Amino acid sequence: MTMTKWWIEGGIFVTMTPQEPVVKGHLVVENDRIVYIGAEHPGKLAEGASRISGSGLVFMPGLINTHGHAAMSLLRGYADDMVLQDWLQTKIWPMEGNFTDQDVYWGSALSALEMLKSGTTAFVDMYDHMNEVAKVVEQSGMRAVLTRGVIGLCPEDVQRAKLEEAVRFVQEWNGKADGRIMTMMSPHAPYTCPPAYIEQIVQAAHDLDVPLHTHMSETAAEVEQNVRDYGSRPVEHLDKLGLFSRPSLVAHAVHLNDDEIALLAERGVAVSHNAASNLKLASGIARVPELLKAGVTVSLGTDGAASNNNLDIFDEIRLAALIHKGVTGDPTAVPALEALRLGTVYGARAIWQQDQIGMLQVGMKADMIALDLDQPQFYPRTDIVSHLVYAASGRDVRHVWVNGVQVLKDRKAVLLDEEKIMAEAQRCYERLTNKV
Amino acid sequence: MTMTKWWIEGGIFVTMTPQEPVVKGHLVVENDRIVYIGAEHPGKLAEGASRISGSGLVFMPGLINTHGHAAMSLLRGYADDMVLQDWLQTKIWPMEGNFTDQDVYWGSALSALEMLKSGTTAFVDMYDHMNEVAKVVEQSGMRAVLTRGVIGLCPEDVQRAKLEEAVRFVQEWNGKADGRIMTMMSPHAPYTCPPAYIEQIVQAAHDLDVPLHTHMSETAAEVEQNVRDYGSRPVEHLDKLGLFSRPSLVAHAVHLNDDEIALLAERGVAVSHNAASNLKLASGIARVPELLKAGVTVSLGTDGAASNNNLDIFDEIRLAALIHKGVTGDPTAVPALEALRLGTVYGARAIWQQDQIGMLQVGMKADMIALDLDQPQFYPRTDIVSHLVYAASGRDVRHVWVNGVQVLKDRKAVLLDEEKIMAEAQRCYERLTNKV
Repeated sequence: MTMTKWWIEGGIFVTMTPQEPVVKGHLVVENDRIVYIGAEHPGKLAEGASRISGSGLVFMPGLINTHGHAAMSLLRGYADDMVLQDWLQTKIWPMEGNFTDQDVYWGSALSALEMLKSGTTAFVDMYDHMNEVAKVVEQSGMRAVLTRGVIGLCPEDVQRAKLEEAVRFVQEWNGKADGRIMTMMSPHAPYTCPPAYIEQIVQAAHDLDVPLHTHMSETAAEVEQNVRDYGSRPVEHLDKLGLFSRPSLVAHAVHLNDDEIALLAERGVAVSHNAASNLKLASGIARVPELLKAGVTVSLGTDGAASNNNLDIFDEIRLAALIHKGVTGDPTAVPALEALRLGTVYGARAIWQQDQIGMLQVGMKADMIALDLDQPQFYPRTDIVSHLVYAASGRDVRHVWVNGVQVLKDRKAVLLDEEKIMAEAQRCYERLTNKV
Repeated sequence: MTMTKWWIEGGIFVTMTPQEPVVKGHLVVENDRIVYIGAEHPGKLAEGASRISGSGLVFMPGLINTHGHAAMSLLRGYADDMVLQDWLQTKIWPMEGNFTDQDVYWGSALSALEMLKSGTTAFVDMYDHMNEVAKVVEQSGMRAVLTRGVIGLCPEDVQRAKLEEAVRFVQEWNGKADGRIMTMMSPHAPYTCPPAYIEQIVQAAHDLDVPLHTHMSETAAEVEQNVRDYGSRPVEHLDKLGLFSRPSLVAHAVHLNDDEIALLAERGVAVSHNAASNLKLASGIARVPELLKAGVTVSLGTDGAASNNNLDIFDEIRLAALIHKGVTGDPTAVPALEALRLGTVYGARAIWQQDQIGMLQVGMKADMIALDLDQPQFYPRTDIVSHLVYAASGRDVRHVWVNGVQVLKDRKAVLLDEEKIMAEAQRCYERLTNKV
């Protein structure tokens, strides 16, 4: 690989570092890493670098979406405003049951495209047909943490086959695509996996030395059922099964009591807060201010597009900044900078990559986005962090780089064929609806 | 005026009419009104019309923002995440006290630009220096309902002068700009206007035959104070003072009991639901599902940009569709179509213009927007109403027409100077911050 070097000249950089959150100046990237950021001219470091004007742009770390099911974008708007079980059983599951490799490929590509165009550079995906998702990640230039989510409500031989598939996926893909792809093991949820099966999955994660991901405490009904079935609430239950003995990331975590929050903090379990999905499915509102106060790493996830129905992390950042104020009655809850951390620094921490991404800092990977600043919603120039949280949208993103490579340029995907993806996703949907 | 006639050929029209919510076909406008909409070719009606291709676009009625203070965009991001009284007293009011005509003009222009570019065609504005706001409306081509909001915490002669100014504003501007400007009378709020002053304002509205607008029951503290000061909650208090004896629109209405909801329904009082502002200032969450069930007209407002911090009604539509599900635990609360009505049909009703705007129907004014549909967040083509509510943003708006005139073309304002407005708003802000 020949060395590439580029220099952003004269831009505003929201670095997300504690020392210097906003830098007006310059940034230099060599290959996949940031080698300079500062107010001063980069001097010798800029030699031989191709120049990019930072004028009219604000740069920040790429956003990190820590929970989703990319292929579910094929079901966006297919069924809304329904009761969860009805929605799943009569609408979503029958459709998903017919998903082929091709459906997962094009659905995931549609999601990758939407995420890229709205400033997400890294995402977590838990689904089936995961080889297809991995191919999309490889081709799109994005970063992802992928996992074959397994549901254990099936005979033992089927359980075993699914587990083997999940293990094979880790073995095949972990660290691939220049390290852009990492993997995890995932029991789908405590209510869809018998305890013994969860223990097998945890053991496999130990053996493979990868983290764990699961859905947890999304609805009140699910927590009650866990108590009925296993005599304990999901957090205690999963803890007993050893899930938190490894690095782990739980999605939703809406219904938690104080003891559970304390335990998650003690075990270092990260949470993916899925605000829009939890609101839309009427699951409730996670106790984010309390989680943060307890020292739990809280990050943001969109969940699948069927229950959101978009994949714009800027929307999730704004929601996180707004709803917890309204619900707690405390206007200082989740202030703007903290909300922005949820989508960047804490997102990186939630996927164990805080040394690589989530901040613009020398030595970090160049995963970065640039937004158009010359728009009315960003005037006057008061507080750029406030503007990014309360007034920005993924549609304001003009350029995206991942691992030092530009993957979105002037709002167009560089490595993905936008027209083809939209057309193929439409075709998949049409075929699926004729089938059911 | 020479006749203008244009024909949108082959588009998707979200009409918002009960009979036919979505039409794939054609729309013809003659001067300021829709003269044809239907699946069939318009035949003779299209003769002499200039053609506009509807390909790749979805058309819908322009959005209606029923509560705001446009000039406050000058304070966007100036102070966030603070306790309301502290925010007002130490930050907002000292700055507003120094606002000149020029500040109000450029601040309002900045807001008009942001609203236009995000698909709002009509807005309600309550502020001071209202001649400047009216000039902006006149020049921008937008539709507005304007009112000089008066605060009565001052000597009687000052009260009288303010009231006279408000009356003069109505006399000068009501029905101006080809009828695009309508006016109201507005006591700022029950807690900022003594009862006798409110009665004078109501009498003036009677004399002028215009509607009334006020802030009401935004915070729990304000409701308690009303009970302490006047022995009744704000709804009963305002009802006794005659405010609801005329067409009236109240902003916020967050803290209401069942009796108050019933009374608002009985009196035909419309509500402007300001979801983002109420969340951001931690005021609470209005009982929108109950208000709708009781038959109250609920519409959407952004409030000022200092407490939002953007003016995108698509954001408010999505918030309204999401938060009430999450808070009530009912995933069928405020379904997508109802959420879209809040920003269109019900918005028109809330400003007493339901016979003119809010739907795409023959005989209605051509206040219409077109969004770019060929984007990943709008695939697959399942339910266009769902996509507009859960996946759209004001940034997706490509064209806007008001009163039959195109005011936004290919994302650029036709009648406003975008660069100049942003630069002047910045200058106003800089001067104001040097002053305080």
